[in-house]
Amino acid sequence: MVSTKNGRLLFHSVPVRDGIVPGTLRYDESETIDLDAVPLNGGALFKLLAVSADPFLTALMSPAYSESAFEHLTYKIGKPIIAYAVIVALRSEIPTVKAGDHFMNMFPLEEYFIIDSLPERTVPLPNDVGIPWSTYVGVCGMPGQTAYMGWKEYSKAKKGETTFVTTGAGKFVIQMAKRDGLKVIASAGSDEKVELVKSFGADVAFNYKTANTLEILEREGGIDVFWDNVGGVTLDAALQASRSKARFLECGMMAAYGATDGPNAVIKNIWNIVGKSITMVGFLVWDLYEGHLDDFYTTVPKLVADGEIKYREDVTRGLGSLEDAMIGLFKGTNVGKAVVIVADE
Amino acid sequence: MVSTKNGRLLFHSVPVRDGIVPGTLRYDESETIDLDAVPLNGGALFKLLAVSADPFLTALMSPAYSESAFEHLTYKIGKPIIAYAVIVALRSEIPTVKAGDHFMNMFPLEEYFIIDSLPERTVPLPNDVGIPWSTYVGVCGMPGQTAYMGWKEYSKAKKGETTFVTTGAGKFVIQMAKRDGLKVIASAGSDEKVELVKSFGADVAFNYKTANTLEILEREGGIDVFWDNVGGVTLDAALQASRSKARFLECGMMAAYGATDGPNAVIKNIWNIVGKSITMVGFLVWDLYEGHLDDFYTTVPKLVADGEIKYREDVTRGLGSLEDAMIGLFKGTNVGKAVVIVADE
Repeated sequence: MVSTKNGRLLFHSVPVRDGIVPGTLRYDESETIDLDAVPLNGGALFKLLAVSADPFLTALMSPAYSESAFEHLTYKIGKPIIAYAVIVALRSEIPTVKAGDHFMNMFPLEEYFIIDSLPERTVPLPNDVGIPWSTYVGVCGMPGQTAYMGWKEYSKAKKGETTFVTTGAGKFVIQMAKRDGLKVIASAGSDEKVELVKSFGADVAFNYKTANTLEILEREGGIDVFWDNVGGVTLDAALQASRSKARFLECGMMAAYGATDGPNAVIKNIWNIVGKSITMVGFLVWDLYEGHLDDFYTTVPKLVADGEIKYREDVTRGLGSLEDAMIGLFKGTNVGKAVVIVADE
Repeated sequence: MVSTKNGRLLFHSVPVRDGIVPGTLRYDESETIDLDAVPLNGGALFKLLAVSADPFLTALMSPAYSESAFEHLTYKIGKPIIAYAVIVALRSEIPTVKAGDHFMNMFPLEEYFIIDSLPERTVPLPNDVGIPWSTYVGVCGMPGQTAYMGWKEYSKAKKGETTFVTTGAGKFVIQMAKRDGLKVIASAGSDEKVELVKSFGADVAFNYKTANTLEILEREGGIDVFWDNVGGVTLDAALQASRSKARFLECGMMAAYGATDGPNAVIKNIWNIVGKSITMVGFLVWDLYEGHLDDFYTTVPKLVADGEIKYREDVTRGLGSLEDAMIGLFKGTNVGKAVVIVADE
């Protein structure tokens, strides 16, 4: 009998505000597991490989979201949090799963765990194009799905139109929009990120911390499609600079999460929705799986492997580094997609 | 030569705020017209019969809207304002128009006027069902079109769902929603209006001035479709009480027009769009004409004539009464659709 340490990332305390603070999560190393002998009871033993640090995870930390679509995922104090991850099967008694198979979905963040069956919406990852496993929680994971499926379903993009993209999953959207023939304005939170989004094809890119978003959007003649990860004052500027019949894809409101006062807590220009016939759509990528998921996994990993879709990752190592990676998201210190590598294989 | 007084309703001064105030418009009786002899020069002479007092007209008074879809309609000081009206041809040199023909569209508010051709989107009114001409600027006019076409295009209503309707054009929407099998919650600004919307079929109706909108929406289990004429705090409550995948039809934001501070000037709960996958649609009824206008005029006047769609009008007489009717809209003193009868035939 060989005991292996089985680190877990636990929900330690509810953050008061600002998404996540040090001490919200706790990396616990007190448990061990016997990988060869632990009984499976008809289930399968998995190993965690890569985890995605996504802004929306903070929603699962907040009681405010307990009535939302995420209710069943809300974190419980003292229990492992869940997040999008790539896992590999070590041993299996599930007929459809064999050792060595990889999967992506939201899983509890334990370095090793046994489950009876794969949860709904689990994506098998044959990875026949040979890209890094981490990409399957990034450009080929939920953030990439959101960009690809949301853009295809809701942008109604027409060649020659202008889109304003706030980054995050937006770096993929920039490339989708350029492929569709749009002019792309992109905002980012540092000069380094501005250079990155330019390298991804943005025609106009600016640092929203030092430039005036509304002035730039108006100078560029207004926008037809807004890809919003930010909310708050950026959304207000986009409403003000919207052209008639614009489409607003509401993927996240990172500036508004936890904002109870100040400029990001309220929207002043909502009347533009009426005056300019704007359509504003909030969506969960899950609801787009039917009709888009097969297309996504047939198309995107190959585009990534061929270098036709670029991506950038900010990688940290070790499950315990997720908290810092999450805090970095809200401080804006990451440049690429924040990914935690737990194990290489 | 017989001179007939030709009264005109002029834009007199830009209201500072609150939509419209006394003195915004001026009824001018200084002009006359010789109805029998005035040369038509290939055009036609029309007489104004009925005019609609619509909240959105205040948008045409405000420089803030000069960049909106209404830009080309913005009122000019000293010139007749335009509004939805029913007109009848007295004499015509336009081949497709003969004396006695009735039409509905936005027209300059002069009791008699000559135009070279009918403007785009003019609706001919054969009125073969024999309903009052005033209905063609109300339940069978732009407000009715908005309700009927907007509901059909955007509500995605399913039997058993719940809709929250703020009144105005909403009285028709209540009846559409009941015909589709929805539970209808309606808000109105007086106890008398509450009784009226109940008589139109609302399952739950309340006076938003004395009741707490959010409490009622939550007590009723939330909403799937929101028909918004109001904006402001009512929209905020609807966002908060929204169920997952709700549809918000944004027809007007009467509470927000001109509100530069106070609770109606800002929206606090916009993040629900992301958390609950809400779709929020602003639309102009004009953009729905293709595909819906023929259906509307084939269906609705007959339903009205047969009493299957109820309506209520608050009628005033004389073109000069429009200003008071408009002020009444914002004070909430009207109960039914506010219509001005300029002449009976």
